[in-house]
Amino acid sequence: MRAAILRDGRLTVDNLPDPVPGEGQVLVRTRSCGICGTDLHAQRHLATFLEGLARSGSELPTDAGRDVVFGHEFCAEIIDYGPGTQRTLAKGATVVGLPFVTGPAGREYVGYSNRFPGGFAELMVLTERLLFAVPDGVSPHAAAMTEPFAVGEHAVVRAAMPAEVGVLIVGSGPIGLAVLAALKTRGVGPIVVTDFSPTRLGFAEALGADELVDAAVTEQREIWSRMGLRRGQRPVAFECVGRPGVAQQVLEHLPRGGLLAVIGNSLEPSYLDQVVAFNKEVDISFAMNYSHSEFGATLGNIAEGRIDVTPVLTGSVFLDRVEDAFTELANADQHVKIMVEFD
Amino acid sequence: MRAAILRDGRLTVDNLPDPVPGEGQVLVRTRSCGICGTDLHAQRHLATFLEGLARSGSELPTDAGRDVVFGHEFCAEIIDYGPGTQRTLAKGATVVGLPFVTGPAGREYVGYSNRFPGGFAELMVLTERLLFAVPDGVSPHAAAMTEPFAVGEHAVVRAAMPAEVGVLIVGSGPIGLAVLAALKTRGVGPIVVTDFSPTRLGFAEALGADELVDAAVTEQREIWSRMGLRRGQRPVAFECVGRPGVAQQVLEHLPRGGLLAVIGNSLEPSYLDQVVAFNKEVDISFAMNYSHSEFGATLGNIAEGRIDVTPVLTGSVFLDRVEDAFTELANADQHVKIMVEFD
Repeated sequence: MRAAILRDGRLTVDNLPDPVPGEGQVLVRTRSCGICGTDLHAQRHLATFLEGLARSGSELPTDAGRDVVFGHEFCAEIIDYGPGTQRTLAKGATVVGLPFVTGPAGREYVGYSNRFPGGFAELMVLTERLLFAVPDGVSPHAAAMTEPFAVGEHAVVRAAMPAEVGVLIVGSGPIGLAVLAALKTRGVGPIVVTDFSPTRLGFAEALGADELVDAAVTEQREIWSRMGLRRGQRPVAFECVGRPGVAQQVLEHLPRGGLLAVIGNSLEPSYLDQVVAFNKEVDISFAMNYSHSEFGATLGNIAEGRIDVTPVLTGSVFLDRVEDAFTELANADQHVKIMVEFD
Repeated sequence: MRAAILRDGRLTVDNLPDPVPGEGQVLVRTRSCGICGTDLHAQRHLATFLEGLARSGSELPTDAGRDVVFGHEFCAEIIDYGPGTQRTLAKGATVVGLPFVTGPAGREYVGYSNRFPGGFAELMVLTERLLFAVPDGVSPHAAAMTEPFAVGEHAVVRAAMPAEVGVLIVGSGPIGLAVLAALKTRGVGPIVVTDFSPTRLGFAEALGADELVDAAVTEQREIWSRMGLRRGQRPVAFECVGRPGVAQQVLEHLPRGGLLAVIGNSLEPSYLDQVVAFNKEVDISFAMNYSHSEFGATLGNIAEGRIDVTPVLTGSVFLDRVEDAFTELANADQHVKIMVEFD
């Protein structure tokens, strides 16, 4: 099969052996796969990412020096079954699913593995019980958005907000937009979104943000001040940038007694000032993945129109242009999500 | 009046002018006042403490270079009233209360102020509406314990724990014991307490800890492993030491998905590794003070015997020995709480 492979820091298109499904696994043909911000960071910082996971007790059996095929935001078609599968989803069924598999080296993350290529390859092996059938009428690109939008759903569940809040989303990239969408399905508000890119803020407007603030013009302290929260209305900030130091900056501006939800995945070292957090009596929640039920709920939200992912689907490329798409996502702000598609 | 004054890093007994109650304030004669761990740290690090508060948007109008009289864990007797007071508490009434006042320079913290001496002075000025009458039969020393035990009550409220938990309290000093007491009033358990001092662990045993672990022998990872939490039973760690780096250590050992409640007040700089917190998907709550109602509830718990503070009251000194008591608390482990008492 052909794949865009992370090899020596480049994304090289080459042939790889077709994967073989193991116990409880299915073989799928990839239809569509989104490029995630974590993939962009991991192109340069995969070793640091793996080291951070190991330090946190979630070690992956991945060698950053060997081939890795990224891609964990996928939609695919079932083409074969491994041993011990239930086969309730028929061959030809279009599916999405959680990107976790168990192999000979233990639990692996599809898309950050040396043994389990992700969706930037023509074929993948996935865990059958983590798959969901995509309802009719949902395009492969839209279905593939289940994964990043499930991250937003999970972040909102994890934050366990009270009924009365004022929300500031910091970062109008894919994660910030996913959080926005999950909040909108609940009718939570007001929601202010801030970003340095007016283009990116336009995507937040399309998804229903109540107010857009240019971060180059207005600092967060001023946003909170303008929001004028009533007594009992809790300030909740979602950090959706994932670069070192941003969560600390959000903490510094957050009003006393607020809630900081960190969803941006900083692969490089980043620290929070405990003294400030203590003196402000904040809560901090961290959200990384999603549960099986949150994933399914998000697919339902997309299929039934409660989440419109079309403003987010800003481009698509074939395998041979994946590296160009990485460069474009890193350096320009015209795109939210570029999808890898297949002939 | 006489007072033990923080002056040039020493605790010097000297005379100060009698304070005069302002609008809404009462003049009280101090009966008893506990020495707090924060006082011990602040003897050396008051400027750093104030700088941390300022950085957190809670600036106090205190000059670390001028006289400060510590003491915010007080029990006192009302002897006079300022203008605009309700006077529902009679002269001679024994009271405890929240150590906050508003003066010409704004909101101040009794015991960390240049203008409002704390309970290591014979007289204090307090805010009338923040006072509670001490029920008959509660000794001044026991009543003065309302303040530190309210910190534990508040920490448990702030932590917003689910019903099913396994609790590890790190640090069996006054704050750890206050958290333990607040958990015991709710029947929460199991509660494991760890500390490097077997003597201090003995105090936790007296207050009903389910298990005591010598931190010199068993590391926290091993404690969690032995606790063998069931699915749905959340690991909750209370950091009650307050020295730099300890909260980070607790975070490193905490199981994935756990809750870290930080109650130890690190006056010196201390940081939390955001990457570890993110990858573990923890929640972190920070608790510093208490509400009016939590303070009142704690006084009720002490008065009605739901919290027995007698194991914690390990010594008392008169004003002229306050500096010796600070040295003893910093260097030995025979004491939890040394009370300052008056002739």
